[in-house]
Amino acid sequence: MNDSLAAVLEHIQSRHDAAVGELSEFLRIPSVSADPARAGDVRACAEWLAQRIAATGLGAEIVQTAGHPIVLARNEHRADRPTVLLYGHYDVQPPDPLAAWESPPFEPVVKKTPAGTDAIYARGAADDKGQIWAHMEAIAAWQSARGGLPVNLIAIFEGEEEIDSHHLADFLNSRREILRADIAVISDTNSFARGVPAITTGLRGLVYSEVTLRAAGNDLHSGIHGGAVKNPAIALAKMLASLVDESGRVTLEGFYDRIEAPKEGERANWGRLNFDEQAYADGLGLVEGKATLGGETGFSTLERKWARPTCDVCGLTSGYQGPGAKTIIPASASAKVSFRLVPGQDPLRVRGSLEKFVRAHCPPGLAATINHFAAAPAVSVDHGGRWASAAMDAVARGFGAAPVFVREGLTIPVVNLLKSTLGLDTLLLGFGLPDDGPHGPNEKFDLENLRAGARTAAFLYEALALV
Amino acid sequence: MNDSLAAVLEHIQSRHDAAVGELSEFLRIPSVSADPARAGDVRACAEWLAQRIAATGLGAEIVQTAGHPIVLARNEHRADRPTVLLYGHYDVQPPDPLAAWESPPFEPVVKKTPAGTDAIYARGAADDKGQIWAHMEAIAAWQSARGGLPVNLIAIFEGEEEIDSHHLADFLNSRREILRADIAVISDTNSFARGVPAITTGLRGLVYSEVTLRAAGNDLHSGIHGGAVKNPAIALAKMLASLVDESGRVTLEGFYDRIEAPKEGERANWGRLNFDEQAYADGLGLVEGKATLGGETGFSTLERKWARPTCDVCGLTSGYQGPGAKTIIPASASAKVSFRLVPGQDPLRVRGSLEKFVRAHCPPGLAATINHFAAAPAVSVDHGGRWASAAMDAVARGFGAAPVFVREGLTIPVVNLLKSTLGLDTLLLGFGLPDDGPHGPNEKFDLENLRAGARTAAFLYEALALV
Repeated sequence: MNDSLAAVLEHIQSRHDAAVGELSEFLRIPSVSADPARAGDVRACAEWLAQRIAATGLGAEIVQTAGHPIVLARNEHRADRPTVLLYGHYDVQPPDPLAAWESPPFEPVVKKTPAGTDAIYARGAADDKGQIWAHMEAIAAWQSARGGLPVNLIAIFEGEEEIDSHHLADFLNSRREILRADIAVISDTNSFARGVPAITTGLRGLVYSEVTLRAAGNDLHSGIHGGAVKNPAIALAKMLASLVDESGRVTLEGFYDRIEAPKEGERANWGRLNFDEQAYADGLGLVEGKATLGGETGFSTLERKWARPTCDVCGLTSGYQGPGAKTIIPASASAKVSFRLVPGQDPLRVRGSLEKFVRAHCPPGLAATINHFAAAPAVSVDHGGRWASAAMDAVARGFGAAPVFVREGLTIPVVNLLKSTLGLDTLLLGFGLPDDGPHGPNEKFDLENLRAGARTAAFLYEALALV
Repeated sequence: MNDSLAAVLEHIQSRHDAAVGELSEFLRIPSVSADPARAGDVRACAEWLAQRIAATGLGAEIVQTAGHPIVLARNEHRADRPTVLLYGHYDVQPPDPLAAWESPPFEPVVKKTPAGTDAIYARGAADDKGQIWAHMEAIAAWQSARGGLPVNLIAIFEGEEEIDSHHLADFLNSRREILRADIAVISDTNSFARGVPAITTGLRGLVYSEVTLRAAGNDLHSGIHGGAVKNPAIALAKMLASLVDESGRVTLEGFYDRIEAPKEGERANWGRLNFDEQAYADGLGLVEGKATLGGETGFSTLERKWARPTCDVCGLTSGYQGPGAKTIIPASASAKVSFRLVPGQDPLRVRGSLEKFVRAHCPPGLAATINHFAAAPAVSVDHGGRWASAAMDAVARGFGAAPVFVREGLTIPVVNLLKSTLGLDTLLLGFGLPDDGPHGPNEKFDLENLRAGARTAAFLYEALALV
């Protein structure tokens, strides 16, 4: 740290109460992107955010899309320094079920967490307004204490992340020239645990498809015709049953062929994380606690979540689903099937194997159709790379604790989108905690994480400037 | 036939147009038992029917139940002749989908069928108002031409058959004394084909249960947790897949142990029926015609429908069922499972085997629950008995063609109820045709079947008197 960063950190420190106050204003705006009745609030939130950005001295504009607007901000760019693209989203999940909130979701309140820390409770606190605000404080501090950021910054704050970023690809593609950057930064993930900050070095990919087997145009009477007409629900059950074998492995042809195993050091690191399986199972509300955990033989729970590909059936639909009995042979039966992918797996090859599998397992006389939805590859960040090293350094200084490298089992489509449209790799620096409860009631963001996040972002901009 | 029956038949013949007119009145009343808005129409229909019965000289009353009323009629009983309990139902299925009707469902119209015969088209034409009306014409003819029926008659016309006869058991149990009879008659089934009248000698039984496997209280994110938590939809698929083996046989313990095979003569008869598999498949709208037919290895389609037990999955429910993709591990997965039973199988034993099977196939860590709905044994009528012989004789005379003995794959709960509450065996003399389309749009009843049905009923009452 050079001396001048002290002023930046001091600015952050001095503004802590003001920061909480401004974050509260941000959280008070119910920017629920999924609710058409909230479209005005979403726009108001974008306008509020753009004004706050402009107040720091950056240029900020609101870009209208076919859906909710995007806030686009930038400082003055200079050719002699790297360009960082910061992505965040100002829209939030719907607050339902309202009855489960201890305080109203859009009336932010600071109170103690069960762990005894102070946190701000509101919808969007962790996902993603609080994390955006950490960056906002860092930017404001650099602008105020140092007269400007040490890097070229492009900030994109989206209003549709919670509804699948419908219009982001168009936006990125149509402005490719002005969005040229060297590295992307997203803060929308978590520390591994309280006091154990993390850098996410991998995300799983996703293939999601729907398989339907059809026997007839309409449901048939199972008394009159039962036993004489092939039952598509039974055929589907047999098909799905053979998609995952007894050791929890996916039977699609070539599914495991090109998988890149985690490096030995990475696996060894995970082993040292002291992942608490019991607490994990308890937190999920499983019917039989740890006994409901399970998956591919030969791997730990963390490995199964982070580094192994999976098959999950996400939905089943067939025939009669109301109360009581209706005696029918269903006309059709369908399953939503998802595969999480790890580095080395090609989503289109997996799709092809699935199609082949369905053809091979559809009994003669039934008609099989497949609808494909997502197909995204896994993401992996080079641990040893210069950007990752800079991020690690920043997190260590900002949190005052060495970060661990973790992966996440989920897919963050924006990361794939930034790669496919702008060719950008992304640094995933999450300031949340695993118990923040985004998407659920009583979402919160620890104030210490707001402070540590702001410090981390301040260090990060400096570190990236030096890469 | 003695001479005096000629007068009965002549009465039936002379009233043909009047009969069609009165059946039209009957059909015009929209007695849809499932629709609460139609409760007044259902009652009006019961009142109309009771008046028509009273007009023939029988006593008729309307018995209120906790649901729709029952019309109960009887003639003057004499100790020296047998008592026949005639069951029918005056309620009808909802007419939906309305757009598929060529003429309004409650505006009966006589027109040509695709086969070139005359038929009356309306909801309830075949199921069961037209078949009731055949009996009404026979009763009226006996009353008018002979001064009375040759048997003691108890007629029960129910208003809740299409909604599971909710209040019939109470009615039968509470009036057991006044409902004592020797044999029951139901006309709510079909000829085997046009010109081939039938007597139904067997119905399959039914066990219907719902199996649910649960992993968690709520759906879980399949990205974050996929691969580490057991998926109840996959576990259910594996369970269902092993419930029916590759030869189409049910794997429940003891399922086939005590089955009574059809008598050699019965099987041989079915072989001579020239069942047209292609026409059957075409009529069902199967996606690949005959190729979609299939079932237990080693049996013909007719045997599979009539004389073999089955397992059908009637419904599947799990996780996300809307459009597109939602990435979850479902909290639970459930299946509605039905077993059709044949003579010799005990429904409660089958239930017990199912429970054992579910326990054995539920993976550790998941919670299994079973909800039981129907449990009814198969019904079989003694071909060679005196009642069946009388019925055969009556059908042969009424239709002018020897009847065939058939079975039906479905369960008619009223038949089981008459046996369990009153100890009565039932003769199933159906006057409908396989193409009448009950429950669907454009339901019809051939006028020639109305005439033949009325004649058959007239002969039947005489034949039963002589048993």
